[in-house]
Parts: sequence; C-alpha cells; structure tokens
Amino acid sequence: MRIAIQGERGSFSDEAARRLLARPRLVCLPNFEEVFRALAGRQADAAVVPIENTLAGSVGANYDLLRRESVWIAGETRVRIAHQLMAAPGVALAQIRRVLSHPVALEQCRKFLARHRTWEVVPFYDTAGSAKHVMANRPDDTAAIASLAAAREYGARILSRGIEDDKKNFTRFVLLYRERRAVPGANKISIVFTTRDRPGALFRALAVFALRDLSLTRIESRPITGRPWEYHFYLDFLGHLNEKRVQNALAHLGELAEEVKVLGWYRQT
Amino acid sequence: MRIAIQGERGSFSDEAARRLLARPRLVCLPNFEEVFRALAGRQADAAVVPIENTLAGSVGANYDLLRRESVWIAGETRVRIAHQLMAAPGVALAQIRRVLSHPVALEQCRKFLARHRTWEVVPFYDTAGSAKHVMANRPDDTAAIASLAAAREYGARILSRGIEDDKKNFTRFVLLYRERRAVPGANKISIVFTTRDRPGALFRALAVFALRDLSLTRIESRPITGRPWEYHFYLDFLGHLNEKRVQNALAHLGELAEEVKVLGWYRQT
Repeated sequence: MRIAIQGERGSFSDEAARRLLARPRLVCLPNFEEVFRALAGRQADAAVVPIENTLAGSVGANYDLLRRESVWIAGETRVRIAHQLMAAPGVALAQIRRVLSHPVALEQCRKFLARHRTWEVVPFYDTAGSAKHVMANRPDDTAAIASLAAAREYGARILSRGIEDDKKNFTRFVLLYRERRAVPGANKISIVFTTRDRPGALFRALAVFALRDLSLTRIESRPITGRPWEYHFYLDFLGHLNEKRVQNALAHLGELAEEVKVLGWYRQT
Repeated sequence: MRIAIQGERGSFSDEAARRLLARPRLVCLPNFEEVFRALAGRQADAAVVPIENTLAGSVGANYDLLRRESVWIAGETRVRIAHQLMAAPGVALAQIRRVLSHPVALEQCRKFLARHRTWEVVPFYDTAGSAKHVMANRPDDTAAIASLAAAREYGARILSRGIEDDKKNFTRFVLLYRERRAVPGANKISIVFTTRDRPGALFRALAVFALRDLSLTRIESRPITGRPWEYHFYLDFLGHLNEKRVQNALAHLGELAEEVKVLGWYRQT
C-alpha cells in the first residue's frame, strides 16, 4: 500500500501511518494539498493526515480539503507528540546557535526555547525534514526539533529529550481512501454541513442529533470562502451509518441544512 | 491613547486601530502574547488584535489569550485584506527572485505565487514588517507582500496590485481594555465556557440561548490544555448585558457549564 503523507520519514504522520496500516510504503509530500492530489491522482492508495492537536487545535487546511475533495475517512489514530532537540553526531549543546523545525513544533517547545534566547529560531516545512536537513548539511551550530523516530531515521544525536512544554500533547490523524468502504467495528461518523443563515440554525442542527440520543464528540466551524461571516460546521458523532436512527438524523439535517456531506465512518480510538 | 498591536506601522492591525480609535499612538510588538502583556503591564492603554479571517479562519492564539488574560472586548471592526507586491523603487518585477511576507498573507496569494514558481517564498513575522525590511535593506531581487498603507508608510513601490486570491477577504479585529466598560450602542456579547464531558452537553448549552430567542453569530471551540479531546467553547450572541433575558441565560449556562466567562459587550459592525 502506497500511503501519501505530508512530511518525511520519521515524521509524526509516518508514525500515524504505521499505526493505521501494516507496512505502509510512504509517498512523502511537502504539503497537504499535494497529499490529497496524490490520492485523487492514484499516485497513492491511501493518505494519512493530521486533523487536530490537543494544544494547537484544528488543522484548518485539512478540514477544508476533506470537504472539497472526494475522500472517505476510514480510520483515526492518536499519536503522542514528544519533541527532541537533535544535531549531527559530534555537535554539543553549547555549540548550538540556530534551531530548525515546523512552526507548530517550535510553538510547542516555547518554554525550552525561552531558556535559549540567543538561538535563532527558523521555521521549517516539517519536523523530520529539519532533522534530515541537519544530517545532510551537518552544520556545527544548528539543531533540529523532531521525533525520536526522525533521530533514528537520519542518525542524528539527541541533545535534549522531551523538550515539549506539555506532556499531554497528542495529534489525531485520519486515514483516507478515495472511495467509501465499510470498516469492521466502525462506530463514529464525521459529517460537514452548512446552515442557512438564520437565528437558531445551529441549535436546530444539533437538535437533530440530541433528540435521537446521538452523542457528538467534536464540533468545528470553518469560514465559507466568498461568504464572509458564514461557516461550514463539522461534526463527529458516535453511531452506525446503517442504523435507522442515524439515517433519520441525516435526513432530518438535510431538511435544515444547505449541504450535508458524510465524510467517513470509522472506529473511534 | 497608546494602543498595542502585533506588527508594524502600515499593518492591517494598524488600520484596524485607526478605525476603532481616533489618533492611536501605536505600541508595535512582535507577537500576540507581548500585546496582551503590554496591556496587562500598562505599557498600553488598549490593544487591537485579529480574531478571525474569512479565508484562514480563527486566530487560535488570540482566542486562548482572551480566555486566559484579564481583558474586556469593547469593540470590533472588519478590515478588507488586500495584498500588494512591493519592492524598493528602481527594482523591476523581472528582477524578483525572493518574496517575503507573513505566512497567512503568502497563503492568501497562492494563485499569484503559483505563476512565479521560481521565486523563493520566505515567511516573515509581519506583512508590514516585510515591507519595512525590504526598504531598510534594499535588495534588488526581493519583494514584500503587504498592504497599500505599508507601501506608503515605508515608501516601497508597488509591482503588482491586489494579488490576493479572493477579494472577499476580511479580518475581524477586537479592541481590548484591561477593565470592563460600557460602550454606547453595545449589542453583542462574547463569552467562553467549558461543558462537562457528557452527551448532549453542547446542545444543552446552546438551548440556553435558543429558548430565549438569543441569536448566536459565532461558535468556536479550542482544545483544553492538559485535558486531551475536551474543548472550551466561545460564543458571540446578540444582546444586552443589562437585559434580564441575557442575565437569565448566563445564569442558566452557569448551571450546565464548568466555567463561564463574559469576554466583552460591544457594538457589532
């Protein structure tokens, strides 16, 4: 199976892909749009992308792509995000003057970086990519912030372990296919819809689920391009797509909402 | 009045500050945390920060800061975001090899940048800051993406006008003070609360407003640090804090939610 991910080997997306699929053959891409494009264009059989982090919040770009593109969520997994400071072997912590990583990783190590105020902090497109870069160029004053897996993948030496501000730092990833598929044990459904712009519209939409005892696990809103101050709403709820109660809820939502799209049905982790 | 903003003179925050207050004396700071700190520490009398953009979505960091810090929203304004490509006078479009700007601005000019694939795209901390940098260093191969006001402020020459992908691009800014204050014509209230983690909790919280015919204009969720997969909810609704119906709704919400904080009462624009 060829799995498209954003980032390099040793990235958190790589770890998520390994958890979701046995022996994934990674197709490493620089951004999320290209990941969705590779899946649509059959350069990959599936894709794994991050959807939310417990510190940084939602990955808005991926919510937008899930709605726009023709994909199906068939699984999810939650990866613990732990960051390590690493450099080429032989480089000591005292030599470091610059640190590279993905902006979200840099943000999540703010307390550590505050203790090294003189370091130049340089945003990079990927955590594992920053480790790869440091090992390819071997500067003696530059470190990367990435995962333990990235250090192993590229042979970087760890200078400081577990430098993230908060240990309760997890990212939820979703597994995507081009087409719908039934998954054993699937118990969670993701949808997106747009309410008509009128008072109480969101409340009525949520009532569709509450009145049928369907539990929401997540709500997210994203702006509608070209319709300022209107929003798409994303819901995750526990249920089975072949259940009458769920089918009724979705039909009922269809009466109230402008556009209802089922994004996937998968097993909650 | 000293007004703290993130970014430089000529930034969209500067434009928002000029709309919200007569003759603001800007205190320009590099990030949002320092803006809130300057307000708390009395280095500024007020602050103006962006809260959501109609293409990129919410500014999560500012939602978090509004909840954590002791501030009061006393106004809002919506600024049309138009981007211009600019360089030092004498530099022609054909010479450009590099372009600097804030990552969100770069994202919003994706179609324009796709027509110049050979350019190196460099993230910068601020749109107006990128214009200031280009005019201070005067490289003959580098352009900045910033506002018309920034071009005027720093004397940069515009090479391409209105390069943003979507013309319906607006950012909503809020005006913050340290303490509560009554504002003439205030008709919108912002709150944040945390639901107890049980089925239907958010539905019940919204019912508090719907059952009293109070119209929501915005809902946003942000992760709770240290409690993975639980969320703070932010609501904006139309109403008056001195209205019995609003007071009852907030008291009712207090019965259902863990923590209710009123963030401000201001005039909707």
